[in-house]
Amino acid sequence: MKIDAVDHIGIVVRSMREATEEYCDVLGFTDGGLSELADRGLLVRELEVGATRIELLAPTRPDSEISVFLQKHGEGLHHICVSVSNLDAKLDDLKKKGATIVGDGGTEGERGVQIGADGSRIAFVHPRNCRGVLLELKEQTAVAALK
Amino acid sequence: MKIDAVDHIGIVVRSMREATEEYCDVLGFTDGGLSELADRGLLVRELEVGATRIELLAPTRPDSEISVFLQKHGEGLHHICVSVSNLDAKLDDLKKKGATIVGDGGTEGERGVQIGADGSRIAFVHPRNCRGVLLELKEQTAVAALK
Repeated sequence: MKIDAVDHIGIVVRSMREATEEYCDVLGFTDGGLSELADRGLLVRELEVGATRIELLAPTRPDSEISVFLQKHGEGLHHICVSVSNLDAKLDDLKKKGATIVGDGGTEGERGVQIGADGSRIAFVHPRNCRGVLLELKEQTAVAALK
Repeated sequence: MKIDAVDHIGIVVRSMREATEEYCDVLGFTDGGLSELADRGLLVRELEVGATRIELLAPTRPDSEISVFLQKHGEGLHHICVSVSNLDAKLDDLKKKGATIVGDGGTEGERGVQIGADGSRIAFVHPRNCRGVLLELKEQTAVAALK
């Protein structure tokens, strides 16, 4: 059950406009486009940088999922996302080894699997199992399968 | 002055033994080897995961450069490192645009350039210019040139 690659790194910012200016105009990252995830209260700016993308994440409302992070920690590195070939098998393996999946209710259909912004199946391993890091797992083949 | 790729992600941990068990035995990352940077008071475990590596960083003494981070923030994501083809030109460009390079004394030969663990030339952009992220720049061609 190996990890295949780092898909992206998520960075939480307060202002998407200021963050985009700094990352693209000053630091030299390539803007890969902006999208809004209205239900999650998020703006996402993709930065294309080789095989591993960077995602700038800004809240669009005070109760978005990253607003709590901003209040507690301020801006900065938020999570890393790695790709796996079979998410269900990976989650089975992780749970067998004692890891906690965020939002896992323990019953079938409530295993913490969500649908990501691009339609792929994702899940999050709890930071307590990753030395404080929020680790997103993304099924590699799901995008093509869902389209 | 584009950024070429994400070279690695640095994660600070307290115990290298426990972190290695979690990342390799439980999460499924591939162990790429352990090295000690005695002068910086660091143990570095490389995890191989596609083009972008992950580095687990543990202190070997209480005054190492990551001990302060551990005291303030605990374990977790510490920095990201991107590769650039010409570090001096990149630093000139960044300074012209008002960015702060960590350890830059402003004089020739004191521009904040350090020699990294693998012999490559590196520098760090201050988190205030990267929305709270410590951004390492690594010269891509330097390893080959130094050998």
